Amino acid sequence: MRSVTITNGYEQSDREQPLDIVDLEALEELARQIIPTGGFGYISGGSEDEWTKARNREAFNTAQIPPRMLADIDHPSTETSIFGIPLKTPVIMAPAAAQGLAHSRGEAATAEGMAAAGTIMSQSTYGTTTIEQTAAAAPGAPWFFQLYMSTDWDFNHALIDQAKKFGASAVVLTVDSTQGGYREADVLNKFQFPLPMANLEQFSSRGSEGKGIAEIYAAAAQAISVDDVRQEYGCRTTVAASSMVDPVHSTCCRASRVRSTVGCR
Amino acid sequence: MRSVTITNGYEQSDREQPLDIVDLEALEELARQIIPTGGFGYISGGSEDEWTKARNREAFNTAQIPPRMLADIDHPSTETSIFGIPLKTPVIMAPAAAQGLAHSRGEAATAEGMAAAGTIMSQSTYGTTTIEQTAAAAPGAPWFFQLYMSTDWDFNHALIDQAKKFGASAVVLTVDSTQGGYREADVLNKFQFPLPMANLEQFSSRGSEGKGIAEIYAAAAQAISVDDVRQEYGCRTTVAASSMVDPVHSTCCRASRVRSTVGCR
Amino acid sequence: MRSVTITNGYEQSDREQPLDIVDLEALEELARQIIPTGGFGYISGGSEDEWTKARNREAFNTAQIPPRMLADIDHPSTETSIFGIPLKTPVIMAPAAAQGLAHSRGEAATAEGMAAAGTIMSQSTYGTTTIEQTAAAAPGAPWFFQLYMSTDWDFNHALIDQAKKFGASAVVLTVDSTQGGYREADVLNKFQFPLPMANLEQFSSRGSEGKGIAEIYAAAAQAISVDDVRQEYGCRTTVAASSMVDPVHSTCCRASRVRSTVGCR
Amino acid sequence: MRSVTITNGYEQSDREQPLDIVDLEALEELARQIIPTGGFGYISGGSEDEWTKARNREAFNTAQIPPRMLADIDHPSTETSIFGIPLKTPVIMAPAAAQGLAHSRGEAATAEGMAAAGTIMSQSTYGTTTIEQTAAAAPGAPWFFQLYMSTDWDFNHALIDQAKKFGASAVVLTVDSTQGGYREADVLNKFQFPLPMANLEQFSSRGSEGKGIAEIYAAAAQAISVDDVRQEYGCRTTVAASSMVDPVHSTCCRASRVRSTVGCR
Repeated sequence: MRSVTITNGYEQSDREQPLDIVDLEALEELARQIIPTGGFGYISGGSEDEWTKARNREAFNTAQIPPRMLADIDHPSTETSIFGIPLKTPVIMAPAAAQGLAHSRGEAATAEGMAAAGTIMSQSTYGTTTIEQTAAAAPGAPWFFQLYMSTDWDFNHALIDQAKKFGASAVVLTVDSTQGGYREADVLNKFQFPLPMANLEQFSSRGSEGKGIAEIYAAAAQAISVDDVRQEYGCRTTVAASSMVDPVHSTCCRASRVRSTVGCR
Repeated sequence: MRSVTITNGYEQSDREQPLDIVDLEALEELARQIIPTGGFGYISGGSEDEWTKARNREAFNTAQIPPRMLADIDHPSTETSIFGIPLKTPVIMAPAAAQGLAHSRGEAATAEGMAAAGTIMSQSTYGTTTIEQTAAAAPGAPWFFQLYMSTDWDFNHALIDQAKKFGASAVVLTVDSTQGGYREADVLNKFQFPLPMANLEQFSSRGSEGKGIAEIYAAAAQAISVDDVRQEYGCRTTVAASSMVDPVHSTCCRASRVRSTVGCR
Repeated sequence: MRSVTITNGYEQSDREQPLDIVDLEALEELARQIIPTGGFGYISGGSEDEWTKARNREAFNTAQIPPRMLADIDHPSTETSIFGIPLKTPVIMAPAAAQGLAHSRGEAATAEGMAAAGTIMSQSTYGTTTIEQTAAAAPGAPWFFQLYMSTDWDFNHALIDQAKKFGASAVVLTVDSTQGGYREADVLNKFQFPLPMANLEQFSSRGSEGKGIAEIYAAAAQAISVDDVRQEYGCRTTVAASSMVDPVHSTCCRASRVRSTVGCR
Repeated sequence: MRSVTITNGYEQSDREQPLDIVDLEALEELARQIIPTGGFGYISGGSEDEWTKARNREAFNTAQIPPRMLADIDHPSTETSIFGIPLKTPVIMAPAAAQGLAHSRGEAATAEGMAAAGTIMSQSTYGTTTIEQTAAAAPGAPWFFQLYMSTDWDFNHALIDQAKKFGASAVVLTVDSTQGGYREADVLNKFQFPLPMANLEQFSSRGSEGKGIAEIYAAAAQAISVDDVRQEYGCRTTVAASSMVDPVHSTCCRASRVRSTVGCR
């Protein structure tokens, strides 16, 4: 029997069970069976024929971590660090909105998982759980807060204060959502967010339920500049992040985007 | 019930209805259901195993308009201009013949659509509606007239006079139809134009019905030179256009062809 | 009803009929229906997973003859010439053995077709019809004779004398059959030539029926050198030809192989 | 009727029969029908979506041995030599573990086959038959011994002594198994070695049955350095070998890895 929480007619899965999978494709297939169509399309779909999504995957697959042979190393390790934060794996989590679409525990469960994997969780402005709830799910584990800067600066400051209060190691500014992508799965599914976004509920007079992602982006600050990245957020680091890799130059840009980090403290 | 206008046995659709589609592939599929096989093959098919068509699509997909991040821009826009004509979108319409094959309103409906999209319609010499009818469908909207120069210069002058009279912003000379392509769909469908071409009817003693595109091209001027592009047409601009992208060098040639514009006034 | 000539149990088609096809794939499909499996595999199959065959086709498709625009040319033409011989098309026929496998008229019908297309037929040493029969099928049309040099020089001289006598314009030496390819279709079909090879019957004590292509090659000269190409054959030209394009460098080698022509007179 | 030897529940085929195949894909398909699922997955599967396996195959297919034309050669030959050992073919066998999974005769039958093909067999540390048995299967034929250096140096010396005693021409050190690959077929099949590994049984207190490959690797020496390759093994040659080709640079690395041979005597 399926165990679900129904919110505004949206069936969030409550299930917790061991998974018998070998790769991410298998995980995606299991998720497709549990997550309602609209939510699955929002999470898994890319925009515009999924051209950039396909290029990103191709770029990711082409990036290799080739081992060095005959290096006299006893226990090879992929441990590394970012901004002085130790990582057990060289992969960190990108901010992703509205994780309650996938499971009723939302970002809290993701924070637990990232801590268990020894890497960094990134909490989105548009998360389903509050900053406090997410931080409490993995006490002591490092995490980033991602800010979609609103045109309402009281809202921005309220969020940054929360992030500092609950220990975010960095603020990640998304800089490529001035214009939302043309997300075909959302159009086909006529998808609008069925679940409240906790930060919008808590700190903003504008709600999110029953809106599409484009409407929600519309409230975000339009004119983001280098100065917005350089200003003082009170965290260790500010990172400018783009969810998009330039598909024409994906291989070479991938590295340079990581290097576009500014405002370290 | 299908609503059609039957001309010389060819069933032109009269239907007008809202479309529930997300991309051009979906539009093409709906069109296939409405347009008779011969007309659909003429419109959608390329020549010679559709090699160049496939290369053109690949080149088009590879050309990206990557947004600039952190540019302090409030409302990003894809508005631009060409020859001083403002465009709401950086895409203009290429000349395409015989649009009555797709719908009984022919080029007139296309002109309306292009005006609504804020871009330029290009009326072909071999259009189904007259220059006057097309121009009247979108009063005030900018449009180009495409000339297949005939070996009959009285015909050419009559067309250019009409284009000037009804306000064409530019004359587009097609320069790569000296030899028609080997269009396999037309061969398989034994396709010949079932509908009169309005300009040929109006200004030429030679008709078009019951002919293939190769026969119609045969009346066009063979020896087109740079001087033909440079001569005075009485419009703001003359553009030399090729429907073909050099498939071997598609990426670099794409830009250079656009630059091969000459004769601006 | 199928009309066939049965030779040693092999059913050669006798049919002649108009073909309603638009491309070579359609022709190959019709041929598959008429030519017995063993013969079709010999003609259409390549060696070793058909890797080189696929590379050759790719190279051929990539080679374009892009038209020059605005060149003031009245009637564009693909006519050209090779070794002073005028061609209506820039494509000539490569030597191919045992064409009787495809049709009972064998090379004679091919010679007719090549003459009608205005290009050059190449008669193989291992043809099904004699040099005399092939030459007589297209009086006055230019043709090449392809020589698999035998270790039996009386045989070689007899063939070259025939080629000169019946007007060959060039002798083509195949230089890459010292070792036959591993032709998987032939292995699967246990294919052996069912039809006599006319030149072997006429001028050699060694027959060809019931042999595989590897056995037949085994009688060919092993140590072919540049001197073999340079020697006097009594024709206008000698050409060293390879049925294989270096797949690694196919694009650049294609041209250089054509340039490896030596011994012009 | 299937003829099998059952060891620890694993059904090793005993069959010997002529094969009617034209290529390796056909051989793999026949093997799939005879080898139990777990063993077949271990032998045929690669790790991590089989990305590197696919790149290796692509690299192998791209490497050509193009014949030189007009070289005045009587009997072209692919014979060559490696470390002074004559080879009838330019391909030698890579070390592969646990060949008893494929057939009850294990490495002994492989040694026979390699000798018949005129090339070199490589006996793995983790073979199913002993060094003595494998060597005895092909008296006088050259072979290599592959060493997974154990952290137990008594074990290493015992194996090298055996290799020298039975005539190994070289010792091959595998240098890229410090960390085992993520072999998805093994995970899906929950594969553990059902058969004893002869060398572990004979010379080590640690067994192999009921273990996965990762557990077995864990006993191998971690910190392999260039000095381990350079040390004196008492054979003609020591070779450092990696089962992995750098997929990003596969074409150019392929050659350089072969050149990384050190310690010749």
